[in-house]
Amino acid sequence: MEIKRPTLLINTQKCKRNIRNMAEKAAKFKTEFRPHFKTHQSHEIGQWFREFGVDKITVSSVQMAQYFAADGWTDITIAFPLNILEIEEINDLAQAIHLNILIESRKILQFAEENLQSEVGVFVKIDTGYHRTGIPIENGEEIGELIDCFSGMRKCNFKGFLVHNGHTYKAASIKEIENIHFNALDELKGLREKYIQAFPNLILSLGDTPSMSVLNNFRDIDEIRPGNFVFYDLMQSQLGVCLEDDIAVVMACPVVAKHKERNQIVIYGGGVHFSKESVIINNHIVFGKLVFLENNKWIIPPHSYFLSSLSQEHGIIQLDETIINSINVGQLIGILPVHSCLSADLHNFYLTENSHRIEISHF
Amino acid sequence: MEIKRPTLLINTQKCKRNIRNMAEKAAKFKTEFRPHFKTHQSHEIGQWFREFGVDKITVSSVQMAQYFAADGWTDITIAFPLNILEIEEINDLAQAIHLNILIESRKILQFAEENLQSEVGVFVKIDTGYHRTGIPIENGEEIGELIDCFSGMRKCNFKGFLVHNGHTYKAASIKEIENIHFNALDELKGLREKYIQAFPNLILSLGDTPSMSVLNNFRDIDEIRPGNFVFYDLMQSQLGVCLEDDIAVVMACPVVAKHKERNQIVIYGGGVHFSKESVIINNHIVFGKLVFLENNKWIIPPHSYFLSSLSQEHGIIQLDETIINSINVGQLIGILPVHSCLSADLHNFYLTENSHRIEISHF
Repeated sequence: MEIKRPTLLINTQKCKRNIRNMAEKAAKFKTEFRPHFKTHQSHEIGQWFREFGVDKITVSSVQMAQYFAADGWTDITIAFPLNILEIEEINDLAQAIHLNILIESRKILQFAEENLQSEVGVFVKIDTGYHRTGIPIENGEEIGELIDCFSGMRKCNFKGFLVHNGHTYKAASIKEIENIHFNALDELKGLREKYIQAFPNLILSLGDTPSMSVLNNFRDIDEIRPGNFVFYDLMQSQLGVCLEDDIAVVMACPVVAKHKERNQIVIYGGGVHFSKESVIINNHIVFGKLVFLENNKWIIPPHSYFLSSLSQEHGIIQLDETIINSINVGQLIGILPVHSCLSADLHNFYLTENSHRIEISHF
Repeated sequence: MEIKRPTLLINTQKCKRNIRNMAEKAAKFKTEFRPHFKTHQSHEIGQWFREFGVDKITVSSVQMAQYFAADGWTDITIAFPLNILEIEEINDLAQAIHLNILIESRKILQFAEENLQSEVGVFVKIDTGYHRTGIPIENGEEIGELIDCFSGMRKCNFKGFLVHNGHTYKAASIKEIENIHFNALDELKGLREKYIQAFPNLILSLGDTPSMSVLNNFRDIDEIRPGNFVFYDLMQSQLGVCLEDDIAVVMACPVVAKHKERNQIVIYGGGVHFSKESVIINNHIVFGKLVFLENNKWIIPPHSYFLSSLSQEHGIIQLDETIINSINVGQLIGILPVHSCLSADLHNFYLTENSHRIEISHF
């Protein structure tokens, strides 16, 4: 396929290597590997995980669960607070597959028990410091009251505690990621001990890609749910949890203008292709990093040049005088994206190194 | 239609009022009104402009030009530097409609002349301070050399000078927007005078919504190309160029969790619905503003509450103790978006106050 406009390239080898590494680490510690599929949103890439023994997945919306259930996935956790407005769709799903939902309040648990028509697994969402959703782990009484509600319930089966330490994405070092993770895990182990007698099968499910990538062991973790690791991105390589060479997607963009007087090139590639997610590198806001393309593969140059500005369709790359003369209008360049999940969501397909098109779904 | 998940509501009255106001101001000063259609990306909304006499439009990509040409638009400017990789598609378009393209270098102009099969109008892109694309207006010699190239050309007809003062989006006051505009216009008038004898039909085409909204006259401007004004958004109301009441789109989002201990609610509505565009209000990063919904319309509350954090599907709204008890999980709330163009691009349809679905296309 001839590339004429912003196109998301995928390196299938890097992608499968990322999946294999995570799957092997999970297998080594007998930890259940339930990857989050919100990153790739693709039936075809989903199937790659089967090669590595994956048969349980995580998604972030009811529609995404429907999409993957339609492709044969029969054990799905919707890692998002139960949206009671979608109870009808949830009932349809729960009839067809083994579905797990997330709950953090007694009121919603009661609603679920009264309105569900089939059994579902229920994770209690616990907040160990990210402060997005979940019952704060220090609120032991509130957690206890919620768990008490499960007794006698016929539809809602208490499955365990689910945590997403999303604050690892803002950590300043690997050490800080590990600290966040192990502090949370220590507290969660206490919670497990407290309830394991009443619920012998309860599990601890942990999520974030940074922790799951840097940990060299998964001891005490029953289940992991990383998502972003399948592609990684500039945010993760900046955090130090992957190498730039591990990043499995790159946006191919045509160069449409060149401004030697300020050493900038303008690409066809903007906020509607990358999203407006940014990282700070050397005190500058950065929306992506330049790589060079060769036959649908990419080469990371020794010197770093960044996508420094984005509008709807335009992107500006700041170069210097040593390199600007080697790039021409009409040429395709590549950009390592800051946040692969959001970039993938803005495209209709991935293009492999063999020019195979992999469809992406949107919800 | 029952709303169950993040849904973009449109108030058709506000939208048409925004179109009418701009159309009437343009008519009053005999300025050509060539609205930018990248904001709404919809055939149906495009047709609303016809009620106000619009028959020429602006788009930001070749694919968007194809989409609107297919709906009967026969005079389209692609306000984006010519992407030579799409010359085939441009030739198809130029055969069917009156097409205008943007050029800022002699090399690309030569390429166009050699590769085009039909006549096109060519705007020379001029940079009056935004520094994204265009020849800096102070480079009179470079501009002159480019314009000289048109003589003898058979496909490329010099049409005039096109400017987008995008730096008005970052202005600190209405006064600053006016200063940016009038300084640029003064310089552009000089340029027009210089070339009007050789090209008696040349026009000055100006773009940005902030200037076009705050100006009380369009004297000396031959053509305006605002886009965002059709919906406006929180960025524009913060700039002071519209009222919040002029904003014609709102995202309806289900409340999925409530955290009284920090006066926050969590909504189903994240970066994949809003984009990650933000504005600074009272020294805080803001991704949207809370409104209340009543029968698919919205009411702006007297006190301001903001969407303070976004992840892929989650949004967090910071409330206070006076209001948190009146909002419940399972309820729908509305959010005025920061950047309506990017939010619209993330949805498949608008929902009107009469529950009519207006399709949105993606490119």
